[in-house]
Amino acid sequence: MEELYQALKQIAPVPQEEWELFAQDIQFKKLKSQEYLLREGDSVNCFYYLVKGLVRIYYVDQEGNEFVKVFQREGEVVGPYVQMIQGLPSSSFIECLEDVEFYLIPYKNLLEAYNRNPLWLKIGLKLLEKYFIQKEERVLELLKLDAGQRYQKFLSDYPDLVNRIPKYHLASYLGIKPESLSRLLRKVGKT
Amino acid sequence: MEELYQALKQIAPVPQEEWELFAQDIQFKKLKSQEYLLREGDSVNCFYYLVKGLVRIYYVDQEGNEFVKVFQREGEVVGPYVQMIQGLPSSSFIECLEDVEFYLIPYKNLLEAYNRNPLWLKIGLKLLEKYFIQKEERVLELLKLDAGQRYQKFLSDYPDLVNRIPKYHLASYLGIKPESLSRLLRKVGKT
Repeated sequence: MEELYQALKQIAPVPQEEWELFAQDIQFKKLKSQEYLLREGDSVNCFYYLVKGLVRIYYVDQEGNEFVKVFQREGEVVGPYVQMIQGLPSSSFIECLEDVEFYLIPYKNLLEAYNRNPLWLKIGLKLLEKYFIQKEERVLELLKLDAGQRYQKFLSDYPDLVNRIPKYHLASYLGIKPESLSRLLRKVGKT
Repeated sequence: MEELYQALKQIAPVPQEEWELFAQDIQFKKLKSQEYLLREGDSVNCFYYLVKGLVRIYYVDQEGNEFVKVFQREGEVVGPYVQMIQGLPSSSFIECLEDVEFYLIPYKNLLEAYNRNPLWLKIGLKLLEKYFIQKEERVLELLKLDAGQRYQKFLSDYPDLVNRIPKYHLASYLGIKPESLSRLLRKVGKT
């Protein structure tokens, strides 16, 4: 579990004894590509710290259309935070796009840690700020940019991800049909 | 400044002496409809707690098109939080859509309070969670819903706001042209 401890120490200096209290019940798991960390309707009580691999988080509407909210990869924390706060079941799917290794972190560990030592409040705030910024950027690109500009932004923000993501998932993230993405890629000379 | 203290106490039991330390340099201000709390490029160092009135927060792209990110009204905290964290100038405009009364809260008051008493970390986390949820919902509606569905959602989430917001700003929030909103409203029998 050393990777997870090191990652936490990047955010704040967590003493060994605090780490040991926090680390109780955290499990290491592996899933294969196309397996699911979470499905819509599942009860939610954990975060996932991704050690290796790539996932897509997506929603399905009543007609069965899929909408990719975000891709996340190694080094990131994912999980249905909003639903955990609200005590609701998951409204999204988290699917592995590659073989994934991750730590399963019970939400209650974090809540207990908040009450034990304010250090964890600082960590929680820092992490939430990070994903708040990510979400703000997503709102802005959905509001302001057309598909071509969104693609360019994705390329510049995540140059290492473009070749790890199937084109039809990328199209869904950009809010366009796969055919439109193919046209776009021909236009910018990428296929 | 009693309204602000009461609002804080809704989130956590802030003792009088903590409140007095926090409240230093907080100013009460008034602006008229169509005046600005903030413009793109302004340096940022304050939150605004709205006591009365309604604002729109919007972005302008290179061609001069406006995109309304969100409307906020009395009882809400607004401010360029992402830019304050990142130490960047404002990337948005905050315009009064009505006469507005607000408290100007220096960001440094919050940072100092974080270091003084963990109670403030809890308050910061709670507030950030609230606006994180709001942002998540905005991402989902931009991703999943068409203009008609977004309008219905806006009506059901903010029934009291619809008549306070000029139609062309509402169209911009929904991501459509004013003409399209007029068509939509005729269709649902609202004009």
